[in-house]
Amino acid sequence: MRVRNKPWAEPLIEAHPEMIITEPAKFKGNWQKRFKKVQPIRIEIGMGKGHFIIEMALKYPEINFIGIEIQRSVAAIALKKALPQTLPNLQLVLADGADLNEYFDNGEIDRVYLNFSDPWPKTRHEKRRLTYKTFLQVYRTILVEHGVIELKTDNQRLFEYSLLSMNNFGIIFDGVYLDLHHSDEALENVETEYEHKFSEKGQRIYKLKGHF
Amino acid sequence: MRVRNKPWAEPLIEAHPEMIITEPAKFKGNWQKRFKKVQPIRIEIGMGKGHFIIEMALKYPEINFIGIEIQRSVAAIALKKALPQTLPNLQLVLADGADLNEYFDNGEIDRVYLNFSDPWPKTRHEKRRLTYKTFLQVYRTILVEHGVIELKTDNQRLFEYSLLSMNNFGIIFDGVYLDLHHSDEALENVETEYEHKFSEKGQRIYKLKGHF
Repeated sequence: MRVRNKPWAEPLIEAHPEMIITEPAKFKGNWQKRFKKVQPIRIEIGMGKGHFIIEMALKYPEINFIGIEIQRSVAAIALKKALPQTLPNLQLVLADGADLNEYFDNGEIDRVYLNFSDPWPKTRHEKRRLTYKTFLQVYRTILVEHGVIELKTDNQRLFEYSLLSMNNFGIIFDGVYLDLHHSDEALENVETEYEHKFSEKGQRIYKLKGHF
Repeated sequence: MRVRNKPWAEPLIEAHPEMIITEPAKFKGNWQKRFKKVQPIRIEIGMGKGHFIIEMALKYPEINFIGIEIQRSVAAIALKKALPQTLPNLQLVLADGADLNEYFDNGEIDRVYLNFSDPWPKTRHEKRRLTYKTFLQVYRTILVEHGVIELKTDNQRLFEYSLLSMNNFGIIFDGVYLDLHHSDEALENVETEYEHKFSEKGQRIYKLKGHF
């Protein structure tokens, strides 16, 4: 997602170190201290404008959530949205999702959400897809035993690729939805901004849920 | 597939024991003797009117094919179509695909094709779906080591179910196609009668290829 540079972004991020973290490696192994209660931590890699992770944090107070976003202007929008909610179970991180094992200790995370990740359609960019085996390896490391991974996308090719890649890695599938919004899983579904826009146009949303 | 009873079906089947087998258990372990050449054997469970298996036998003379169908009238149509081709690498079987391990020895089969199987949509009929674990167990037994299974369907729910069931069974995916007719795999694809009819209406065809 590309957004225009926002002059208010940087001061807002700097003014809220209690809510948004720019050096996540400092908290490796100590993430529970950032939350009010010690409870399972779930992360979203690429939270975008934060709609999903904020709504999840509101819906599941018994879980701690971390939203990670690499783009400052985008993360700032999420921060702006999150601040009035004063959620004790939400933290935002402004950092590259590719370096997760620098930010989180082995087994520190309970679940990983990959929502509408960049599909990187060209074969030569396969290694950049967030379901490429090197990423799966990192998720396995930072996740608890039998930790869960949830993927949503509207991109058919990325979904086909992810089914293959995750199966080949040995991930055990718990749910496959080829048309999420017309499935039983729709009831519990929390949408991202992007998802809302695309599903309104009648586009299919795919979901895969599995565990290591 | 339901078809009207055909009075010519029974005499035709009886007249061609060289082409269609009604007691397949008699050939268990000795299927290669039914073919001109000893070469890998692939079976289609539920061949219907036989379009797929006949075209495959024509296209791949270096492979032996067996088409299995439980309905006499339907198998007779396949037989009628197959006879003029005099294919040395094709055999038809009139029998229940559920009893495969009574017909084939361990490791006798190289590949299993499941084309547009009955989706059995009701949960209480799950055990009848041809990708239910008890069927997968049978395929594993009759297949060679790392034997391949190929599934095609237009039924979204059956495909979702099969992705789950086959993954959970430990089958390694080699290809997932969520819109077969608009994929690279379309080039090599041999259609069934049913598939042709449905894809012409613009319906998506799903394909999964994997190995044990």
